[in-house]
Parts: sequence; structure tokens; C-alpha cells
Amino acid sequence: MPRYRLTLEYDGSAFVGWQRQSNGLTVQQVLEEAVAIFDEPPALVYGAGRTDAGVHALAQVAHVDLKTVHDPETVRNAINFHTKPHPVAVLAVNRVADDFHARYDAISRHYRYRILNRRARPALEEGRVWWVPRRLDVEAMTSAAHLLVGEHDFTSFRATLCQAKTPVKTLDQLVIRQAGDSISIEVSARSFLHNQVRIIVGSLSWVGVGRWSRDDLKAALDARARAAGGPTAPAEGLYLTGVDYPVDETEKSHQA
Amino acid sequence: MPRYRLTLEYDGSAFVGWQRQSNGLTVQQVLEEAVAIFDEPPALVYGAGRTDAGVHALAQVAHVDLKTVHDPETVRNAINFHTKPHPVAVLAVNRVADDFHARYDAISRHYRYRILNRRARPALEEGRVWWVPRRLDVEAMTSAAHLLVGEHDFTSFRATLCQAKTPVKTLDQLVIRQAGDSISIEVSARSFLHNQVRIIVGSLSWVGVGRWSRDDLKAALDARARAAGGPTAPAEGLYLTGVDYPVDETEKSHQA
Repeated sequence: MPRYRLTLEYDGSAFVGWQRQSNGLTVQQVLEEAVAIFDEPPALVYGAGRTDAGVHALAQVAHVDLKTVHDPETVRNAINFHTKPHPVAVLAVNRVADDFHARYDAISRHYRYRILNRRARPALEEGRVWWVPRRLDVEAMTSAAHLLVGEHDFTSFRATLCQAKTPVKTLDQLVIRQAGDSISIEVSARSFLHNQVRIIVGSLSWVGVGRWSRDDLKAALDARARAAGGPTAPAEGLYLTGVDYPVDETEKSHQA
Repeated sequence: MPRYRLTLEYDGSAFVGWQRQSNGLTVQQVLEEAVAIFDEPPALVYGAGRTDAGVHALAQVAHVDLKTVHDPETVRNAINFHTKPHPVAVLAVNRVADDFHARYDAISRHYRYRILNRRARPALEEGRVWWVPRRLDVEAMTSAAHLLVGEHDFTSFRATLCQAKTPVKTLDQLVIRQAGDSISIEVSARSFLHNQVRIIVGSLSWVGVGRWSRDDLKAALDARARAAGGPTAPAEGLYLTGVDYPVDETEKSHQA
């Protein structure tokens, strides 16, 4: 069966998350139902990242096996047609090797967290940003953020329900950018713990408002206990912005 | 009565336009009702630009007279509280001279038109951009756009219902920027005709898809007839991004 890689954009506020579940509509379900209409049921769509309810994607990656060989552009157009009116769009489709796996082959995942830092609530970006009315000291946040880059035990920065075997992860990048009243936090790693980015952002916000010093963040990291970490920032500001694969995976694929 | 200048952001898709009317909710109505609650009715709010249904604002400017003197920050917070849950936010409030007029004193208005130029429909920016699936030649559009800068009779680029006394307007700026699949058209003028920006964008889109040459756009301008102009681009891509006033107006105001 031919395997295809899908690059996906979606509005997380319309879904209870990526992964199929009984309590509401998920991105995976909408995609699988769309594929089943133009190909043959059942369709199984595997995502690189199982984003939570409310979390958005600019470039989630998934793979699916079809029963029939189709032109990648046809696959893209067909899924985009059958997923309407749900806010999920297939940006690109590539034919990939039969053993490509969106989740297990990923070597890097990129997230962006967006904060609107101003007194007035968002009128145009409600549900797209975390609104923080209190002024954040981005310089202090940036200085503290350096402590988290590299390999660490992130127990203080993962959900208590997190099922990962080890709390040790390597943050490859943690960059904070400010443009006017908009703050973007870019985070990259091979993989993340459950809620890791949101707890990092929540903790950095405590540094930003002066509740925590750089040393307090260090102490939280060293404590290796969720109770020592900061709050979990809301899902609505989080975007999965990209997933990387080894070059040879890309070379053996065919651009749509 | 003390006069205040308001800088406003709003999501145009929630309103039938700026100006009070009987067929639905308007930005002006929501603001006037909010002001009336914390000050005294009646409240009259005058905007610099009477944006149409669906048109957004990042920095519309308006003025209002209050019966009581309040701190500008108090005015901002009170209006933001009482306009909830409507998607309009007061970004800044300045106390201004009693003869300041948001509409008549404006010396320049700035609009941005946003196009999403890709095959897949928007999932995250539905209602915030004009989705154009066919590839646009931005270089050709830029070359043609130069023809419209300066003083011209814009009869071909105004709504037939436009009530302006003269169709002669001066475009001070018309710049097209491309970043990935996102195209932004920035337009500035002292004032605009009804639907002028949207008809300019619609006409440039015809150049972008190759339906019109640069000469065709010139011919449309010279024809001085609405029927000779291009289509009206949809409201959802249009943003009022700023309004300028003479320096002395700013000097006599007090920053919130």
C-alpha cells in the first residue's frame, strides 16, 4: 500500500486534541474520515506530535497508507475537500517509503508559543495567543531560559500524568523574540514531555513578572518535582510549527 | 466636556460595520453602549474611518466626549470591561483638545490587505485573509501598482454607491510584500473612496493571475468608469492599521 506524508495546519480550538477519543472531535478523526471517503475505509493517520486540546499546528506531519496509488496533489485536494468545514488543511503531500513513520522517524520537533503582552484583551487573536496583561521582562526571561537549554531532567516541567519512560530530554533551542506587544517563544527538541513547553512558558512568565529570579528557575529545575515547577500556560498560545526528518527520508520522498 | 481619543482593535467579522445601523451590531454601537454605562448616556463615538462589514482594525481611531473627567487609563479599562464579550479592544486612550476630530483632523489613513496565496484553504486564518489558490505573480502586481500611486481620478476604483464629492484622490503609498504564501498590500492616503482599497486589490489580483497586463490596469484607470475596474476583493482581508494626525494634535494630547 502506498504511503503518503501529510503536512497539516489546524486550528486547535475546534478540536479536543490530535488523537481519537470518545469525548469530542479530534484532528485525527476528521482526517481519517476524509481519507476513508475518497480511498477505502479503514484509514489510519499517524501524527508526529499528539497535540492537546486547543493546541494549533502550522506544520504538523502525519502519514497514511492508501489502498490505491494517487497523485500526491490529488490526495491533498481530496482530503482538503472532504475535511470541510473543519479548520484543518493539508498544505503538502509527499509519497514516502513504506517504512516511513511520522512519529518514530522524527528527529526534531519545533513549537512556538505566542503571548500577547498588553493591557487590552485580544480582539483579533482571541484563542490564538495567551493574553498576559502584566508587563513581562523579556530580558530576564531570556537570561533564565538559557538554564533550560541542553540535557536536563525535566520532571518539574512535565504533567504529572506524563507517560514518558524518562524525564530526561534535550532542549536544542529556546529563543524568545519580542515585536511590539507580541512575544514569541521558539522551542526545539527531538521530543518533548507532556505539557513541557507550556510549563516552561508558564515558569518563564513567573520570571517575566518578577515572581521568580533566574536562581528560582534553576532551583525549580533541580528539584525534579512537578510541584516545584511553574504553572502550565494555556493551550491556545501553542503552535506546532514543524517536524524534521533525516535527509535520506526526504530524498526518497516525492514532492507533491 | 473632556474629549478622549481612542485607539481601537476589532474583528470585523463580528460586526455589520463601523457605523450604527438597524440591520445588525456595529462597532460604534458597542462602544457607545459601553461608554454610556460607565459615564452617562448618551455617548457619541466618532471614528476616523467608517469600515465596512467584515473589515478589521488594528488601530482605528475615534473620539468621544465624556460628562466627567476620568484618567485615560480608567477610560480604557472601563470601555474594555463593558464591551465584553464583543471582539473590540481599546488599545490606548489619550485626552485631547476639545476641538480634536478623529475623522476631520486625520491627515493620513493606512490600510493593509492580506492575501493567503496557496492551494490549501486557510485553517487558522479563516475570515482574516483573502484566500487566493491560484498563484499570483507579485512582481507583475508590484510593477502595475506603481501606476496607481499619486493623484488620479479613481472612478474605476470606487463603489458605484460611493458618495464622495470627487473621485480624485492621492495614493501616497502602495507597497506589496511577500513572505512565503502570505502577501500583504500596504496602502496609504489622506482619505479613500468607498471600496477603493478592495477594488485596487481585486484589480491587482487580475494582474497577478495574468488576466490583465500592466497596460490593462492603466486602461482601466483611464476609463474612469467602475465597469472598467477589476472586482472588489472580499472584506475579510482588509485591516485599518493606523490613522495619522498633525503633530500639534499629538502634542496637545496626553498619553494614557
